[in-house]
Amino acid sequence: MASLTIALDAMGGDFGPCVTVPASLQALASNSELIIKLVGLSSNIEPLLKSASSEVLSRLEIIPAESMVANDAKPSQAIRNSRGTSMRIALDLVKSGEAMACVSAGNTGALMGLAKLMLKPLDGIERPALVSAIPNQQGGKTLVLDLGANVECDGDMLVQFAVMGAVMAEEILQVDNPRVALLNIGEEETKGLDNIQAAAAILKNAQQINYIGYLEGNDLLTGKTDVLVCDGFVGNVTLKTLEGVIRVFLSLLSSGKRRPTWWMKIFSYWFKKRLSKRFGHLNPDRYNGACLLGLRGTVIKSHGAANQQAFAVAIEQAIQAVQRSVPMQIAARLQAVLPKSE
Amino acid sequence: MASLTIALDAMGGDFGPCVTVPASLQALASNSELIIKLVGLSSNIEPLLKSASSEVLSRLEIIPAESMVANDAKPSQAIRNSRGTSMRIALDLVKSGEAMACVSAGNTGALMGLAKLMLKPLDGIERPALVSAIPNQQGGKTLVLDLGANVECDGDMLVQFAVMGAVMAEEILQVDNPRVALLNIGEEETKGLDNIQAAAAILKNAQQINYIGYLEGNDLLTGKTDVLVCDGFVGNVTLKTLEGVIRVFLSLLSSGKRRPTWWMKIFSYWFKKRLSKRFGHLNPDRYNGACLLGLRGTVIKSHGAANQQAFAVAIEQAIQAVQRSVPMQIAARLQAVLPKSE
Repeated sequence: MASLTIALDAMGGDFGPCVTVPASLQALASNSELIIKLVGLSSNIEPLLKSASSEVLSRLEIIPAESMVANDAKPSQAIRNSRGTSMRIALDLVKSGEAMACVSAGNTGALMGLAKLMLKPLDGIERPALVSAIPNQQGGKTLVLDLGANVECDGDMLVQFAVMGAVMAEEILQVDNPRVALLNIGEEETKGLDNIQAAAAILKNAQQINYIGYLEGNDLLTGKTDVLVCDGFVGNVTLKTLEGVIRVFLSLLSSGKRRPTWWMKIFSYWFKKRLSKRFGHLNPDRYNGACLLGLRGTVIKSHGAANQQAFAVAIEQAIQAVQRSVPMQIAARLQAVLPKSE
Repeated sequence: MASLTIALDAMGGDFGPCVTVPASLQALASNSELIIKLVGLSSNIEPLLKSASSEVLSRLEIIPAESMVANDAKPSQAIRNSRGTSMRIALDLVKSGEAMACVSAGNTGALMGLAKLMLKPLDGIERPALVSAIPNQQGGKTLVLDLGANVECDGDMLVQFAVMGAVMAEEILQVDNPRVALLNIGEEETKGLDNIQAAAAILKNAQQINYIGYLEGNDLLTGKTDVLVCDGFVGNVTLKTLEGVIRVFLSLLSSGKRRPTWWMKIFSYWFKKRLSKRFGHLNPDRYNGACLLGLRGTVIKSHGAANQQAFAVAIEQAIQAVQRSVPMQIAARLQAVLPKSE
C-alpha cells in the first residue's frame, strides 16, 4: 500500500461525480503524496478528468462499480443489496488494506452500517460514533459526538465516545489534555438520564480523561469544553437546530420589506462581510466531514449536499486522520481507560 | 372565588420579591379584573408596595409563608420539606379553588413535582409537560413540548403531549386545526426512536389531531408546524441550544478588535436596532413563562432570572390560560383522542 491512499465513493451524495471528481483533482493537486482510488461508474467519471494534468492523473485510479446505494434507501435494505455498489467497494479497499481511509457523501445509515459490518469496531468499542468539529466562540473547535450513528446509548457507550473524542481532540485539534463534558439538562450531578449519570460516574474516576462534568445546550458554542458527548439522537437534533438557527439569522440580514436605500445596501454589504468573516467558520462548507470513529479504519461521512469545496474538506479530514493514526491511538487509549471492557 | 384570581410564589426566582412584587403591581394596573394572592414573607413584600395606588392594593392580598424552596435544592428533598414554603402554599390555593392559577419562578424540578403531587394530572395524562411558545420565521409561534418536565417519555406520553399542544395552539395561539409534528432525526417513517415511531402510529390515525409527520431540528424556527413534540431531555437541550446560538450571534454584532470608526458606530447602532426589531421576539423577556400542561389547574413556570417585565409576561400567560379554560379543554379533547386511556 502506498503511503497515503484514500478510497472515495465517487457516486455518493446529491451530485455524485460532478462534485466528487473535481474535489478529488483539487485534493490531489494540493497534496503530492496523496493517491486516490475513485470508485464508481467509469462512464460518469472519465469525462470529468479531461482538464487534469498527467501528474495528477498518475495518482488517481478509477475502480469500477456496477451500482450505487440510493440516498433514500432504507439502510437495512441498502446493506443487504450493497454488493457491487461504489460505497461497499470503497470500504472493501480499506478492509483489504489497499486504502487507508474511505470518504463518502452517500446514504448515512447505509455507510455507518456497512462500515461497522466490514471494518469492525476496535476492541472495547461497542458501536462507532459520528463526530464533527464545531467552531466555538473562543476561536477553537469543539468535537461533538455522537451525531446520529446511535440513537440509543448506554453509559458505557458514552464513556467510549468520551475516550474517542479525547484522542481525536489531541491528535486532530492538537489540544493538550482536552476537556471532556457530557451534554445534559443541568449542571448538577443529580440531573439527567441514567445512562448519562452512569457515564459520569466512570469518567470521574478515569485518570486518562480530563472530565469536567455536565454542560447544557447553551454551551455548544462557548468553548467551555473541547469534547462534548451525547447520544446520537440528541447530537443530531442539536446540530441541526444550530444549523437552522444560523440559517434563519443570516437570512434575516438580507431580507426586508422596504426597498433598501443606497446607504443601507453599502452597510449591509459591509456588515455581512464582517459577519461571514466571524461566522464563516460555521459554514457547513468549511466544517464538512463527520468522522466515523471507533472502527479499524478511517471513514469520513460528507454532507450529502456538499459542493466541491466542502467535499475537498472531507478528503482533507481523511488525510489528517490517516496521518495521525487516529484509530490506533484510540485503541491504545481504550486499553488504558477501559482495561476490562469487551 | 373571584373571577380571575392568580396565586404568585413571591419568593421564587433569582430576585424574589424585588421582581415579583413590581411585576404584580404592573399586572394589576393593566387588568382591572385581576386579583393577586402574593405568597411570601410579609416583611420582604410590604416595603415594595408603598408606591401602589389603593385601588391596586385592594386587589392584592399577601398570604404569609414561613419559608421558601431553595433554587439549588434537590427536587425530591425540596418536596419533602415543602410544608410552609411560598411555592407550596401558592399551589395549595389553586388546589382549594381559592386561586385559578399559580405562577412561580422558583426551583423548576420542585415546582413540577409539587404541582403534580397536589393538583393531580387530568384523566388520560400520565405526566404533565412544560410547553413554551417559540417565535418562528413566519411571524407566528410554534409550541414546543416537553421542555424538561419528563426526561424519559414513552409513545403514549408523546401522544398526550401532542393533544395538549394542539389544544393550547387553538386556545392560546388561536390557530385553527393546528399542525402537529414529532421532532425526529429524519423525515422518513423508519427514522428515530421506538417511542417516536409508536407515537407516530397513533397520531396518524387520530382524527382530532392534524398530524403532519416528523420534523428535524433545523425546522424549529421555520414555522412548518404549530406544535412540535419531543421528550423533555431533547426539548430542554434544543431550547438551550437555540438560546445559546442567539446569544453568541448577537454578541458578535457588538464585539470587535479594531476601534470602530464613527460611521461603523452609526451603522452598527442602526443595524442592531433592525435586528432587535426582527429578533426581539426571541428575547426571553418576551416569551417568558413555560406552562405546565396536563394538570387540573394552571401552573406557569417563569425563568428564574426573569426581570419585572418578563415576570409580568408570565402572569399574563396565566391569565390567558385561565380565561381560555385550557385544562378543561385538554380534558375534553383527551376524551375524544384517547377514549380508552387511563
